[in-house]
Amino acid sequence: MFSHQTKIRVRYAETDKMGYVYYGNYATYFEVARIEALRSLGINYKETEDKGVMLPVLSYSTKFFKPAYYDEELTIKLFIKELPQARIHFYFETYNESEVKINQAEVVLVFVDMEKNKPCYAPQELISQLKSFGL
Amino acid sequence: MFSHQTKIRVRYAETDKMGYVYYGNYATYFEVARIEALRSLGINYKETEDKGVMLPVLSYSTKFFKPAYYDEELTIKLFIKELPQARIHFYFETYNESEVKINQAEVVLVFVDMEKNKPCYAPQELISQLKSFGL
Amino acid sequence: MFSHQTKIRVRYAETDKMGYVYYGNYATYFEVARIEALRSLGINYKETEDKGVMLPVLSYSTKFFKPAYYDEELTIKLFIKELPQARIHFYFETYNESEVKINQAEVVLVFVDMEKNKPCYAPQELISQLKSFGL
Amino acid sequence: MFSHQTKIRVRYAETDKMGYVYYGNYATYFEVARIEALRSLGINYKETEDKGVMLPVLSYSTKFFKPAYYDEELTIKLFIKELPQARIHFYFETYNESEVKINQAEVVLVFVDMEKNKPCYAPQELISQLKSFGL
Repeated sequence: MFSHQTKIRVRYAETDKMGYVYYGNYATYFEVARIEALRSLGINYKETEDKGVMLPVLSYSTKFFKPAYYDEELTIKLFIKELPQARIHFYFETYNESEVKINQAEVVLVFVDMEKNKPCYAPQELISQLKSFGL
Repeated sequence: MFSHQTKIRVRYAETDKMGYVYYGNYATYFEVARIEALRSLGINYKETEDKGVMLPVLSYSTKFFKPAYYDEELTIKLFIKELPQARIHFYFETYNESEVKINQAEVVLVFVDMEKNKPCYAPQELISQLKSFGL
Repeated sequence: MFSHQTKIRVRYAETDKMGYVYYGNYATYFEVARIEALRSLGINYKETEDKGVMLPVLSYSTKFFKPAYYDEELTIKLFIKELPQARIHFYFETYNESEVKINQAEVVLVFVDMEKNKPCYAPQELISQLKSFGL
Repeated sequence: MFSHQTKIRVRYAETDKMGYVYYGNYATYFEVARIEALRSLGINYKETEDKGVMLPVLSYSTKFFKPAYYDEELTIKLFIKELPQARIHFYFETYNESEVKINQAEVVLVFVDMEKNKPCYAPQELISQLKSFGL
């Protein structure tokens, strides 16, 4: 299994009148966690798009246990449990500063050849990197 | 079953560099659909909060079939299939201008007594209204 | 002078922990007001982009007199006071449900030929329409 | 003059279909820059609010010279040029990875006693800190 951690500080803009992080904003936190995890594997997602492969989201599900608050530094733990083919599954767990798990999520994305507008295989370099983590 | 439709036009701010509505922004569209559905039932959510009952999100899951684009007028169809107790389940289907279903979602929220910070029953007026739709 | 009004209801996602509309979100409200004003003049901005002319923002300034709150239906009054050349100036005033002016803003945008990546003149149809309003 | 630098990486969610950072999102970047500048001075804004003083925005103006793109690490340079009383003026300059200034901005905020809902003086610790920078 591959795992990676990203720290994200809650911005004022991301809170709502309940004083919580608005539930829709976690999608962005998970995006940041994905991109930083890929970067740690030597994959620059921007360059992947520049080369003609994009990675839209197919499904997204999340369970909220506790809210996050303004200015907290959250830790997003990301897991990849199986080698991607055209699809890649990311699992997430968000922890607050007290190390309490406040939510968990799963996102499935698909590699798309932008020219053909069709699904394609994950980049070989990503596969190789993940194999080195025992996947 | 209770159903309701809300129309939402895609804003420029909500698109991303793929030219699609960013996947995180549907959470806001579904929020708007919920609030307008409740309003159609005579429930003003702002007043509900002012009276001390709030409705945070417990879980959210969505499947994306097709992207939405800038300036499209989307139709969000919302369904309530069972009477809420402390929790309320909303189902959503989003249709584009060609009447193609582009995604579907489920959101579970919980009524919370803000003073006690504990779950509480759904407001009686909501139950009564939903019963009149055969739930 | 050309003027136009757009009504926008404040979404939960747009509030912050102060209970106010986050100051950054007015930029989106003014975007919606611009697009709807252009639409009322027969200009579909999406089609304008599809034809190769885009309209990025050059400057934006705003003064806030009072906050806006969740679920308020705001009225954005938009004014165009002079005929655009390569640049177009929009003036905005936001009113709450009590008809109190809560902020005002000015946005300058520039018409850009996307192929040449250079400023270009405003579309002739926009000029003609605005002339019919005495500009 | 007091100055401070914050680095912010552009998120996918913050881009728009033009491929640029949406103009409204800089307000959030400047918020982050303000909060980190205050933190560097020993002022935790969250605690300031917890103690009953909030800092809403009175005015905001910005000029855009060049766009920012996805995944760029921007440098926000923040300047405070005079001691605050009830109002505090922040000046910002945003630089891209090529060290080109892509925009500049000015934000004026006001210290508000939340209980009295009235303007109040800037916290003494902030004044003292800024004085140590020669203001």
